[in-house]
Amino acid sequence: MTFELTILGTSSALPTKEHYPTAHVLNVHERLFLIDCGEGAQIQMLRAGLSTSRLDAVFISHLHGDHLFGLFGLLSTMSMLGRKKELPIYGPAQLEEVLHDHLRHFGMDMSFQAVVHPVDTDAPALIYANPEMTVHSIPLKHRVPTTGFLFREQLPERNVHKHLITAHHLPVSDILQLKNGNDITLPDGQVLTCETATYLPYIPRSYAYCSDTMFSETVVEQVRDVDLLYHEATYLSDKIDLAQRTMHSTAADAATVAKQANVKRLLIGHFSSRYGKKERFLQEALPIFPKTQIAEELKPVKLKVKN
Amino acid sequence: MTFELTILGTSSALPTKEHYPTAHVLNVHERLFLIDCGEGAQIQMLRAGLSTSRLDAVFISHLHGDHLFGLFGLLSTMSMLGRKKELPIYGPAQLEEVLHDHLRHFGMDMSFQAVVHPVDTDAPALIYANPEMTVHSIPLKHRVPTTGFLFREQLPERNVHKHLITAHHLPVSDILQLKNGNDITLPDGQVLTCETATYLPYIPRSYAYCSDTMFSETVVEQVRDVDLLYHEATYLSDKIDLAQRTMHSTAADAATVAKQANVKRLLIGHFSSRYGKKERFLQEALPIFPKTQIAEELKPVKLKVKN
Repeated sequence: MTFELTILGTSSALPTKEHYPTAHVLNVHERLFLIDCGEGAQIQMLRAGLSTSRLDAVFISHLHGDHLFGLFGLLSTMSMLGRKKELPIYGPAQLEEVLHDHLRHFGMDMSFQAVVHPVDTDAPALIYANPEMTVHSIPLKHRVPTTGFLFREQLPERNVHKHLITAHHLPVSDILQLKNGNDITLPDGQVLTCETATYLPYIPRSYAYCSDTMFSETVVEQVRDVDLLYHEATYLSDKIDLAQRTMHSTAADAATVAKQANVKRLLIGHFSSRYGKKERFLQEALPIFPKTQIAEELKPVKLKVKN
Repeated sequence: MTFELTILGTSSALPTKEHYPTAHVLNVHERLFLIDCGEGAQIQMLRAGLSTSRLDAVFISHLHGDHLFGLFGLLSTMSMLGRKKELPIYGPAQLEEVLHDHLRHFGMDMSFQAVVHPVDTDAPALIYANPEMTVHSIPLKHRVPTTGFLFREQLPERNVHKHLITAHHLPVSDILQLKNGNDITLPDGQVLTCETATYLPYIPRSYAYCSDTMFSETVVEQVRDVDLLYHEATYLSDKIDLAQRTMHSTAADAATVAKQANVKRLLIGHFSSRYGKKERFLQEALPIFPKTQIAEELKPVKLKVKN
């Protein structure tokens, strides 16, 4: 039961020789989800061995080019490869018009439908669900309407402890009652409660994606206790004025969100090209939140099953 | 006096792990010209050490994504870097509406104007000139309106042979007459003709760009005797049916154009991702036109000054 993040690009608006603009792929139980789609995302997916044909949905945080301009080539490639299945794309409402104009010029021969599902960037909401996962939006504070995304495994069906099944010779009907959350009464009058007789086979894993945004208390509330938080860290604190003017975060901001929200791990990225060594971002974040890592392109981050 | 071509991408519509879609940069006397702009062109320019700020003009052959979808990110980057100078973009008329729609969504804060100059894709014409170079369009045969481009150094001013200046004590006025193409009469009645008294300091160099297109007699006429011809070779002759259906060329087609047009050198590219080794394209082209080379990304092709 995979829950694995592959980061395709870690640069901010200006690309560098080595780094691509923002795009992430989340693999949840072998379904792939693309989160933002900067230029070059489709080539990076090829390099990561992630087939574009396997994408179930796309999530776009906001309409700045470094998060979006790879989408046009990706759609074209998926069409040339013969995709038939509709592709849902979740993002700010303005994305509908952008995609409409794009398809008017370049969508004549598209083999599949790409459909925008507008996301309210002002209030958190459940925006997507499948049997394995839910996605909630996270309102972010940036220069244009922007949303983050919280991916969470669905709560699995509870299992009944095997030793109880054996000891009490439980029939299937009783097992199903317990699994469905009900208590049962045994022939001898003893009550077996769901709580004591069952257990979760695993605890749902979660990934929160926050890019681009200023420090925000709302984000802290939204990402509380997640297993993995990606938070942008465009600047170091030496450029706090610039960060505030452009409505971006510093490494210290990202670490503060992670600390206040009590997340398990923090990944930082979206680094301004003005900084050379990425270690400086880590030096700023680690004293605030020790479980911080630099986002690295094409190195999958696996979240193990939690029991 | 540089005349140098850098190829940024050699793949056709489907990108591969190693290769980018089509984009070329031509350096003529240290002015840079971008020819087509597939996704990733700006990153490849960075890798080639070619500053996007130095671009004088952009030439787009046709409106298929693998020749165009890098333009949006490139414009955004040039704006973020503070370009002020207007950027002329030459391409099929439909490009005007595409750019208009793009700028409506993403051009609010552009630091410069990008202006489309429509190119008639049905008849060859002079479409651009500066003191060092001219560009003529080359009508191509593809599924949508498509144009190639012929870049040619301007004819340089003629020089007067130094030994004649000395021998006849020629005054500046006579030198200018000769340089301007006139004959002069010396005090002793002898006539010095422009033809015998002057010479071209160098012979103009030329580069013809033809992608995407079927084999075309018109192209042969248009690219006659050029120093360097880039001609697409999407398929090998084993897929001639597919080449005709998609209106592309085989390696043999490209070599035949080069041979019939008597060009000096041929570069082939735009290879379909279905073929692994590029040597097969060379094997097909070389028996027809021995001076064929495979287009290689980021390896500049220099054309030396011709005397």
